[in-house]
Amino acid sequence: MAANRRVETLTRHLTSMALVDVEAAPQLALPADFDPRELYEFLCRDNLELRDRIMEFLKDDLYQPNYYLSLMEFRELTLQRLQKFVAQKFFSSKDYITDPLRFQAGLECLALADYSLSIKAGVHFTLCGGTIAKLGTAKHHEQYLPRLDTLDLPGCFGMTELGHGSNVMGIETTATYDNQAGEFVIHTPSDTASKFWIGGAAQHGKVCTVFAQLTVNGKWEGPHVFVVRIRNDAGGPIPGVRIKDNGPKMGLNGVDNGQIWFDHVRVSRDALLDAFASVAPDGTYSSPIKSVAQRFGTMVGGLTTGRMLIAQAAVDAGKIGVAIAIAYACKRPQFGDTLIMDYLTHQRRLLPALATTYAMHLSMLRLKAIFVQKRPEDAKTIHVMSSGLKAGATWSRGETLQACRECCGGQGFLAANKIGAMKTDMDVDVTFEGDNTVLMQQVAKALLDAAVRSPSAPSAPSVSVPALTSLARIQELLAYREESLTAELAIAMARAMKAASSQGKQAAAAAANAAFEDNLDTVVALGWANVDRTAFQIFTEEVAAAPSATRPTLGALALLYGLTRIERNLAFYLAAGVLNGQHAAALRLRVNEVCRQLVSDGGKPALRLCAGFGIPDHLLQAPIAFDWTQIGSDGHQM
Amino acid sequence: MAANRRVETLTRHLTSMALVDVEAAPQLALPADFDPRELYEFLCRDNLELRDRIMEFLKDDLYQPNYYLSLMEFRELTLQRLQKFVAQKFFSSKDYITDPLRFQAGLECLALADYSLSIKAGVHFTLCGGTIAKLGTAKHHEQYLPRLDTLDLPGCFGMTELGHGSNVMGIETTATYDNQAGEFVIHTPSDTASKFWIGGAAQHGKVCTVFAQLTVNGKWEGPHVFVVRIRNDAGGPIPGVRIKDNGPKMGLNGVDNGQIWFDHVRVSRDALLDAFASVAPDGTYSSPIKSVAQRFGTMVGGLTTGRMLIAQAAVDAGKIGVAIAIAYACKRPQFGDTLIMDYLTHQRRLLPALATTYAMHLSMLRLKAIFVQKRPEDAKTIHVMSSGLKAGATWSRGETLQACRECCGGQGFLAANKIGAMKTDMDVDVTFEGDNTVLMQQVAKALLDAAVRSPSAPSAPSVSVPALTSLARIQELLAYREESLTAELAIAMARAMKAASSQGKQAAAAAANAAFEDNLDTVVALGWANVDRTAFQIFTEEVAAAPSATRPTLGALALLYGLTRIERNLAFYLAAGVLNGQHAAALRLRVNEVCRQLVSDGGKPALRLCAGFGIPDHLLQAPIAFDWTQIGSDGHQM
Repeated sequence: MAANRRVETLTRHLTSMALVDVEAAPQLALPADFDPRELYEFLCRDNLELRDRIMEFLKDDLYQPNYYLSLMEFRELTLQRLQKFVAQKFFSSKDYITDPLRFQAGLECLALADYSLSIKAGVHFTLCGGTIAKLGTAKHHEQYLPRLDTLDLPGCFGMTELGHGSNVMGIETTATYDNQAGEFVIHTPSDTASKFWIGGAAQHGKVCTVFAQLTVNGKWEGPHVFVVRIRNDAGGPIPGVRIKDNGPKMGLNGVDNGQIWFDHVRVSRDALLDAFASVAPDGTYSSPIKSVAQRFGTMVGGLTTGRMLIAQAAVDAGKIGVAIAIAYACKRPQFGDTLIMDYLTHQRRLLPALATTYAMHLSMLRLKAIFVQKRPEDAKTIHVMSSGLKAGATWSRGETLQACRECCGGQGFLAANKIGAMKTDMDVDVTFEGDNTVLMQQVAKALLDAAVRSPSAPSAPSVSVPALTSLARIQELLAYREESLTAELAIAMARAMKAASSQGKQAAAAAANAAFEDNLDTVVALGWANVDRTAFQIFTEEVAAAPSATRPTLGALALLYGLTRIERNLAFYLAAGVLNGQHAAALRLRVNEVCRQLVSDGGKPALRLCAGFGIPDHLLQAPIAFDWTQIGSDGHQM
Repeated sequence: MAANRRVETLTRHLTSMALVDVEAAPQLALPADFDPRELYEFLCRDNLELRDRIMEFLKDDLYQPNYYLSLMEFRELTLQRLQKFVAQKFFSSKDYITDPLRFQAGLECLALADYSLSIKAGVHFTLCGGTIAKLGTAKHHEQYLPRLDTLDLPGCFGMTELGHGSNVMGIETTATYDNQAGEFVIHTPSDTASKFWIGGAAQHGKVCTVFAQLTVNGKWEGPHVFVVRIRNDAGGPIPGVRIKDNGPKMGLNGVDNGQIWFDHVRVSRDALLDAFASVAPDGTYSSPIKSVAQRFGTMVGGLTTGRMLIAQAAVDAGKIGVAIAIAYACKRPQFGDTLIMDYLTHQRRLLPALATTYAMHLSMLRLKAIFVQKRPEDAKTIHVMSSGLKAGATWSRGETLQACRECCGGQGFLAANKIGAMKTDMDVDVTFEGDNTVLMQQVAKALLDAAVRSPSAPSAPSVSVPALTSLARIQELLAYREESLTAELAIAMARAMKAASSQGKQAAAAAANAAFEDNLDTVVALGWANVDRTAFQIFTEEVAAAPSATRPTLGALALLYGLTRIERNLAFYLAAGVLNGQHAAALRLRVNEVCRQLVSDGGKPALRLCAGFGIPDHLLQAPIAFDWTQIGSDGHQM
């Protein structure tokens, strides 16, 4: 038949785009006979018992979601929730220094219940308490930390200003030392200098760690941090402090953000957090770090915990999202007996999200392990990893929750099903604690520091089509992209420097910076390439160390992660000539195949991986994760 | 110097990835000296005067945002807003048939003020009223439409069931004709058959157009629509009707969605909307359309207006989002005098979003123009365009608002700045009125219908690097992708049919369907390819017809749209061998160049394009779109 011949001919024509052959599609079984608790313990690693206790405590009625409240009622509920939590003394502000994993574990559990509660606690303990612990000295610790532990003195963090978000060095608030009085004068010289977005400022905050440009004896010493009362013990006003409510936000409305102006507010000499710089009564300024920029970098560098908590909360939200969406998809039929998880489009959205969530979680484990060792030589690694992972984890969280919400259809939009509500609350995480675009630039800058001095092009890996399933080849491909983008940018910057070198060092540096700015799209891509390569490497290392029964399933997930990261940047590899059309076709089929494996056996592998997250039912909450046909029954709070 | 030589060598090595040369980056001026009102009139095209009047009316205090309300208060406010709007008689339910553009224009304006209000009105007028107008006959029109026009009888739309969203043919609610009584018995046989997500059902609805499987004289006739009272005139209960509140949602909380069960509820014979099928008193069923599937298809096919309104509201939300984000970015400095719009990363996020918003708007204009002609031969075009554009416009809206929200940093999260609040409310649009993934499958199915019978591979266009700026070449590339994906899928389906043909026609059809399902990722890609090709074609045609002063700027925007659609699918073109590494590098530079053009002259071209949307200040609202330094002043409601 002519038509059949034509089909055959066309098929040959289009081999590079070969589609799945119905009969040929393999349905490989994936043994997933492991105990989810064993996987959970592997994934959790620290403070298991404390976490179990806190999660158990969160069964308390006070922590059940209530979406009926007005803004002001929700803020009040959030305060009450924090008060009751604090009263349990699960951890102390001092743990920020002495037992950081315990400190973080406690706060991580709160995010499982409600993000407003988590952020209100985070502002108080991490941003305010952590700053006092890290940048203050014994006198500050004694004066403030016990009162923070009891929430007797709710704390705020006064860094961001209306006109200065990403550029913290450029804040305008001033602190001028008055030699005669032995006091600092804190002042807001303009509206753009007002402290903005300050969590807790609108209603409950009484004390604030204020970042201000210090001037002593007429000399500017750069930004320093001061502990300033913004309300008295009774919650009443402090003369010279003006506060305005930021009002409703798109989410996170349990947190009372506000705007603060200081009108020549006087604080004692002790208000300066003086671990890295001090002012003597006579106005003699001293610091072991001479450069203003380095000094500020050291101060801010000590405050990585907040960024790590944001990243971990994003990962944990991803866990909740995929656990709900996958549970629902494995039970919900549509068009006869077909479960929605049976559709490739569903698998393609939920399973890479599951893989990414694992990759980010395991990477955070690694970062925390390095962080607690406190080795000076790890400072750069911590900076790069915490920046990249915060951006990578929160952007991935956004994608993951969006996919989960859409895969649950209308049910994903119902507040009771948690995904949508989390998505709204957490949307802020991609721009706070460092805007993600700026953080990815930080990652790239660190990688380029060395590369610009001596740019070198990486050699392209050679990959055969079958080798696409090899974890080692995937690792090479991911590394190649990072090295290649580093080389491209380093070369562009080096060329610009060279062209401007005759005009002096400053001109050369400016030219290099201009080349960097002109290629910001590639800069951000480099940040991502670093996160992808690092996370995949950690993922494969962790699979090797995982309980043996979990390894086949975790391994398939790691493979899916690696394949989809390459697929996402496929154009790069094709343009570079490292992969070709046949690879592209094979890659697609491999991804589809691994997806099918992960949902074989009624979805068991995927469901076990979700169970491994160890989110108890009362924190998963969503009715659709259990019996979706009873969604409207009175058993579930709606 | 050795280092310099190395740089030169590497540069040659990496030509395919060439980055922007600082000096070489052109800053082409783009004349944008046109009157935004002239552009607005070109973009608006119908009911200008009506729209102006409605937008003026929406200055009323009642329509000012209030984000402090509890759920129940917001529902009440939304009802009051709708009541006051309805009292103005801007349009009538009858316009659904007699003047559909007027009907749509009226509802489109509401979405500019608040999406809950828009959806509450849309459910009432479009879904309930439109169904009665389209599927009912004179007796229904006389009985119901005047009472809908005054909101005396708030309407609901009872199609979706808990167990049946995308598969409407599979609904379980039954309508059994009782010959003796001359009545239909409406019944909910199970919980999965309960009507779910029914807008207006929880509190305010009194009448509902209920979709149910009709049985007459023991014979099943397929789904039909019945007008059923769910509350009496006083708002009290109707015996046999049980309603449950769906409760809080992640957004859109001004709409009171509910779940409805019918327990053998009896309605008169007149309750059947009988434009396409009727039941005589003695139980004789008659319809000009014999096939159950075709009959239902005809009924549902008449209800395209709702889908178009959702798509248009998504486009209009995109307009508001980019107008706010671009206005802010052109005023907001960061790191010295640099405006955030000066950053390439910012341009790369906001300007393609602006271009896509234009492309979707112009495509909707075209669809509406075809729709109102009501030519039978356009039915398929309307089906494909309304499905594809609904999916394309709402998914693009999601991306656009996310980009806008992130580009505004924390300010994007503030409810007063509107972007975040819109994003949350509108998130539902990607899954309601047809799940986007399913709609893209509908588009693909329509394209494949003919192709499967006689698959043919398209010839690959040949594109030189400079020709990448040619609109005609871009059109060819976009068409090639659509044709190529069609051919791939058609071949896979034809092969599967051939392999199964010996087992009979049904087996062959099942095999083709299995091939379709096994390649659902490509199927959705084909839907997108169709939207991209269609929208770009319409965009370029509209540029040619636009007021001459606007053409250079609109042309640059169309170019950006085309280039970024190709860039997004670059891997396809590279894998197919149609583009190579040099094209890829050139494409990136072109996109960056057009972005820079659009923000030249202090952002004037982009700002003018935003002004062309004609959103009045009182509907733009966001303080950051005006004087961002006064965000916290008392002038703005927060």
